[in-house]
Amino acid sequence: MNDTSSVPDIVISRLPSYLQTLNQMAKEGWHTVSSKVLAERVGTTAAQIRKDLSFFGGFGKQGTGYSIYHLIEQLQKILNMDRVWSAIIVGAGDLGRALARYQGFAQRGIEIAMLFDIDPKIVGTQIGSVVVRHVDTMESEIQKNNFKISIITVPAAVAQIIANRLVEAGIQAILNYAPVTLIVPGSVQLQNIDPVLQLQRTLYYLSDD
Amino acid sequence: MNDTSSVPDIVISRLPSYLQTLNQMAKEGWHTVSSKVLAERVGTTAAQIRKDLSFFGGFGKQGTGYSIYHLIEQLQKILNMDRVWSAIIVGAGDLGRALARYQGFAQRGIEIAMLFDIDPKIVGTQIGSVVVRHVDTMESEIQKNNFKISIITVPAAVAQIIANRLVEAGIQAILNYAPVTLIVPGSVQLQNIDPVLQLQRTLYYLSDD
Repeated sequence: MNDTSSVPDIVISRLPSYLQTLNQMAKEGWHTVSSKVLAERVGTTAAQIRKDLSFFGGFGKQGTGYSIYHLIEQLQKILNMDRVWSAIIVGAGDLGRALARYQGFAQRGIEIAMLFDIDPKIVGTQIGSVVVRHVDTMESEIQKNNFKISIITVPAAVAQIIANRLVEAGIQAILNYAPVTLIVPGSVQLQNIDPVLQLQRTLYYLSDD
Repeated sequence: MNDTSSVPDIVISRLPSYLQTLNQMAKEGWHTVSSKVLAERVGTTAAQIRKDLSFFGGFGKQGTGYSIYHLIEQLQKILNMDRVWSAIIVGAGDLGRALARYQGFAQRGIEIAMLFDIDPKIVGTQIGSVVVRHVDTMESEIQKNNFKISIITVPAAVAQIIANRLVEAGIQAILNYAPVTLIVPGSVQLQNIDPVLQLQRTLYYLSDD
């Protein structure tokens, strides 16, 4: 658990995209960056970035900007990303399998440790680097391995039941792909990914000529 | 284009999840709902919901709450969801193929019309209800069919090039799955889906005991 529990959620939610942009700039050969340039790349304002980073003491010197590597290191520390986290996936359908094979997790510190499903035709098959396990063993594996993070890619109709079981077994963070609003205790971090909801909010702005 | 251009983006961004919850409640047999109950289901406050809906004139009567079907109908109209929108997917890898087969789009008014890739081994194959086309035909198909919406599921290294080509061809809304910060004109609606960024913002809150 992080000490700085007084930092607003909205500030924390913006740090991963700062970090992604800084990593991209480091790869491009940048060593320092002003809040103005960083803001342009992230798509926000310099004032917002300075204000967000000030919660952690600020990292820039007046006039010289931020050292990119230092800022990356500090942001990784703040976000508990200076270690590898294990995550499990529940639901080995099209999406669950695509996620299990997605290299972007391992590259950015998240190891997909196990994949669970209920379908006997899928259980036992190899997907990426993991073998699909039966969902009946889910709770015992979570407890044995002290897993904290789960991705849910089961059908909407069973997503809440799976979420309840995950929370009961000790999962603290859920990334939900099922197109349904899950109810979890306030102590559990819930993030929803629904491509349809994200497209719907853009339709408002489209011209239909 | 919608008339009510003075409505803040953040309000628009919340409407799809209100709509999703209302659809769920309608399926469960509810006919009316108070802002308090709706807020509990959505995970927000009653004041927030009343304030958001007030931008559109408000839809509830004091004491009786909202008519669920009326509210669904109005929200669909506001979000331009009273018609079917066509979308294309660029990149027929694991994720692109999973999305092309995902029933949730068609069920909620978005038709995946075409799927593009550059790999000659994939071009011409059938995925779900569409045949993969070569990306060289992308611009002409967009213009011929007046497509406005594209989903990007290509590797990070080529995502910006694809985004530039899509915008040039007339695409107005992009849902980007590539783990990279895309730069698009302000007139283009850009939504990013990156499961790693969404998980990273939860790590801050996890205990590592």
